[in-house]
Amino acid sequence: MSDKKKPQESSVVMTEMVLPNDTNPLDNLMGGRLMHWMDIATAICAQRHSNCAVVTASVDNVSFKNPIPLGSIVTFQAKVTRAFRTSMEVHLEVFAERIPDIPRFKSNSAFFTFVALDGSKRPVPAPEVVPSTEHEKELFEGALRRRELRLVLAGKMKPQDSAALKALFGENN
Amino acid sequence: MSDKKKPQESSVVMTEMVLPNDTNPLDNLMGGRLMHWMDIATAICAQRHSNCAVVTASVDNVSFKNPIPLGSIVTFQAKVTRAFRTSMEVHLEVFAERIPDIPRFKSNSAFFTFVALDGSKRPVPAPEVVPSTEHEKELFEGALRRRELRLVLAGKMKPQDSAALKALFGENN
Amino acid sequence: MSDKKKPQESSVVMTEMVLPNDTNPLDNLMGGRLMHWMDIATAICAQRHSNCAVVTASVDNVSFKNPIPLGSIVTFQAKVTRAFRTSMEVHLEVFAERIPDIPRFKSNSAFFTFVALDGSKRPVPAPEVVPSTEHEKELFEGALRRRELRLVLAGKMKPQDSAALKALFGENN
Amino acid sequence: MSDKKKPQESSVVMTEMVLPNDTNPLDNLMGGRLMHWMDIATAICAQRHSNCAVVTASVDNVSFKNPIPLGSIVTFQAKVTRAFRTSMEVHLEVFAERIPDIPRFKSNSAFFTFVALDGSKRPVPAPEVVPSTEHEKELFEGALRRRELRLVLAGKMKPQDSAALKALFGENN
Amino acid sequence: MSDKKKPQESSVVMTEMVLPNDTNPLDNLMGGRLMHWMDIATAICAQRHSNCAVVTASVDNVSFKNPIPLGSIVTFQAKVTRAFRTSMEVHLEVFAERIPDIPRFKSNSAFFTFVALDGSKRPVPAPEVVPSTEHEKELFEGALRRRELRLVLAGKMKPQDSAALKALFGENN
Amino acid sequence: MSDKKKPQESSVVMTEMVLPNDTNPLDNLMGGRLMHWMDIATAICAQRHSNCAVVTASVDNVSFKNPIPLGSIVTFQAKVTRAFRTSMEVHLEVFAERIPDIPRFKSNSAFFTFVALDGSKRPVPAPEVVPSTEHEKELFEGALRRRELRLVLAGKMKPQDSAALKALFGENN
Repeated sequence: MSDKKKPQESSVVMTEMVLPNDTNPLDNLMGGRLMHWMDIATAICAQRHSNCAVVTASVDNVSFKNPIPLGSIVTFQAKVTRAFRTSMEVHLEVFAERIPDIPRFKSNSAFFTFVALDGSKRPVPAPEVVPSTEHEKELFEGALRRRELRLVLAGKMKPQDSAALKALFGENN
Repeated sequence: MSDKKKPQESSVVMTEMVLPNDTNPLDNLMGGRLMHWMDIATAICAQRHSNCAVVTASVDNVSFKNPIPLGSIVTFQAKVTRAFRTSMEVHLEVFAERIPDIPRFKSNSAFFTFVALDGSKRPVPAPEVVPSTEHEKELFEGALRRRELRLVLAGKMKPQDSAALKALFGENN
Repeated sequence: MSDKKKPQESSVVMTEMVLPNDTNPLDNLMGGRLMHWMDIATAICAQRHSNCAVVTASVDNVSFKNPIPLGSIVTFQAKVTRAFRTSMEVHLEVFAERIPDIPRFKSNSAFFTFVALDGSKRPVPAPEVVPSTEHEKELFEGALRRRELRLVLAGKMKPQDSAALKALFGENN
Repeated sequence: MSDKKKPQESSVVMTEMVLPNDTNPLDNLMGGRLMHWMDIATAICAQRHSNCAVVTASVDNVSFKNPIPLGSIVTFQAKVTRAFRTSMEVHLEVFAERIPDIPRFKSNSAFFTFVALDGSKRPVPAPEVVPSTEHEKELFEGALRRRELRLVLAGKMKPQDSAALKALFGENN
Repeated sequence: MSDKKKPQESSVVMTEMVLPNDTNPLDNLMGGRLMHWMDIATAICAQRHSNCAVVTASVDNVSFKNPIPLGSIVTFQAKVTRAFRTSMEVHLEVFAERIPDIPRFKSNSAFFTFVALDGSKRPVPAPEVVPSTEHEKELFEGALRRRELRLVLAGKMKPQDSAALKALFGENN
Repeated sequence: MSDKKKPQESSVVMTEMVLPNDTNPLDNLMGGRLMHWMDIATAICAQRHSNCAVVTASVDNVSFKNPIPLGSIVTFQAKVTRAFRTSMEVHLEVFAERIPDIPRFKSNSAFFTFVALDGSKRPVPAPEVVPSTEHEKELFEGALRRRELRLVLAGKMKPQDSAALKALFGENN
């Protein structure tokens, strides 16, 4: 396994149609079904980056704004943003369209974190991520702050030990 | 619709078996499938509390620690914690066991937010939540802080306008 | 494995939503899909009671009265009633509701019988059931009569050898 | 609709493969999944006989003897036995085989009862069944006795009012 | 394994109901779902003929004429036509009906080719096919020509080496 | 609707994981499941090109060479090649990989034909396809010959009326 990889080497595009069983009684895609697909798209991306089996470690706060009606086509674009020893953060953007009446719109974005496992199901280091575009660099930089927030929310880091969060939420802002 | 309701009036217990198609190549439950079930259990809870159709508005950060292997029984316990005009926060606890070899353990907990909709798909006010047990009161109190965090993360509130977060993350802690 | 257990130690609550693929062309839950869920709920109950893998041995006569329409929430409550060496009888009650228009109603009840299997797929004795509530005691008492009826219907017992059935169907009633 | 029909005019053969998600942790077909398929095969038969939409009214006692392992082919043969005004009894035989190691064997048989509904979901009379083979005539004759047993088990007929059951279970047998 | 078998010894009848998730936004059966079922029906037929596991080798041109609406019953009739060392050609006819409004009509026909595999996943010879009816004999004769067309289309045979195709498409016709 | 469109404006990338229920007893992807996915990917492409609902009209001969094992990731790339009044031909390439042991390989290619339908389910003209790359131009040219072969195979054109086929299969080659 090479120890450095660009995000585009493992990027994933996934496309799904919203079928009747994916919808709630209002005939819109259920949030849980959307998260199921989001997890699959990002897991494939993390597999490709690490060249390993992976398990979902966490999902950051996801919000749902516009309904996605029955018959829509949903497109998922996943890209790894940064690796932290054995974990990888993957960024996902979700778009929806319904032909012919609803033009493509951005539905959601999310960050998933995965751990790469070897054949004995033990965590293994993932290749370093080498961002190249402006957007990839921004995502790479922000990953540190998002990771600290995850650790604080999981009770594994004290809020006052998080430099990034203190800067964001502190009195002096 | 009565305008005040206790959490136990709408609580939900849901039980699922982990079948082959729910698992990844390591034979453990996929994170996305688990989130799908979590969304269904909490949505039913929000439906019962509001006596309305509901749509998922957001899911807070979810982390996955222990794998849940094929053949496990997964139990979901959902309870509404607090209502904010047209939205409701639902707390979910997830337990897993595999008979006969893995005794029941707590797998996850999460907070989902739903919006109640009327027959014309317009948001409607949800009944006030009246907590009674100690745990329900704690969840009720914490709901305000979690809501502010959601608004900040969604870019709808400035960090410095969030009293609860300033107290948590501020310099003086 | 302890050799005596109360019904509540293994009771199961399962909740399902009626999705489009679960319905017939009249938009009501198909009987077969309901039986599928009934089998899962009662099998989990028998697993918990015996702490073993189980296989369905038989299902007593099930009748379907009220239709359960698309979008309903179906709740299954399963409790073991009595153990006979290697088999266990499980009682199931099914309730349905559709929010906001159909209040919760009792849809069905049924008796399923399971056999507990060890790791080599051989039948193993199940713990004795110790009923405590009035209802549990009634179910425990009736189990004997239902078992004889099953044996007669399966051609494994002659009608005239069944004391319970003779009392029920005999000339002198 | 003609008012008399032979069983073979509406007979159904249905074939299914046992896939991983149909099996329990012992890698055998789950009883509930089998009942789901049994209901579909018999419902199609009742639809063809009545030329109407149908709903399942009841399923007689079903017992499961031999396990049907993953990868098996399951064949269902359904034939209507007799019509009672708006209800029809359908007989089902289930066979299983696994190629190349398990030769075809008879797995189950069962009786399902359906009610035919018109476009307004009201029960409508089903055509009379005209049995022609020896086996069809036997099934036709036995239908009366099975119907009385169903009525007694459903609490809609007193045991002592059932001539057929008295003969079967009575003191003098 | 006997080395000669009649088509009826391995013929398959499969019946499916068109459920909501099988349909496109026009409420008709999706072509891909129909091909999925066609593959299963013909694979079971090839399994029965060869008494082996089989893999799909090719599907000839399939065309779809009449839509099959939601709620239809689809019947598949598969029969092996001819064996070529380790491959078998299976002929499939598809019929659809919707009760009570659409009488049974022929929807499709197709030819699938399968290879029989032994326990080590190596191709094994399939029994010779002995056609008996007029239709079986026609299918047996035509199999040679269809096989040559498959080889030409797959780039494994030059058009001018195919005697059957030259006769069909040549200048002198 | 614009009357000319480039293939890349409607191209589709779809990604699927091979789950247990998608596999045969040899643990490889079933041919029918693969065709189901192929149909969905190409149908979305035809929808995007025509900005209409579409129905599958035909699938050309598909052959299956290498098995795709459980746990593989399958990628579908669909591009419209040419429009013929109300029908469109879509070219599909299928790739598979399994991480970490099976590097990406080309699994299949296929041609699907779709008809665009308006709101009343009547065929409507599809925009002309304007190929730009060398490969797109080749596919555009070949579409005419493939269409004639389809018409001949469907019995709608006599072999000797097909100029393209006579050139391919004729005596003088």
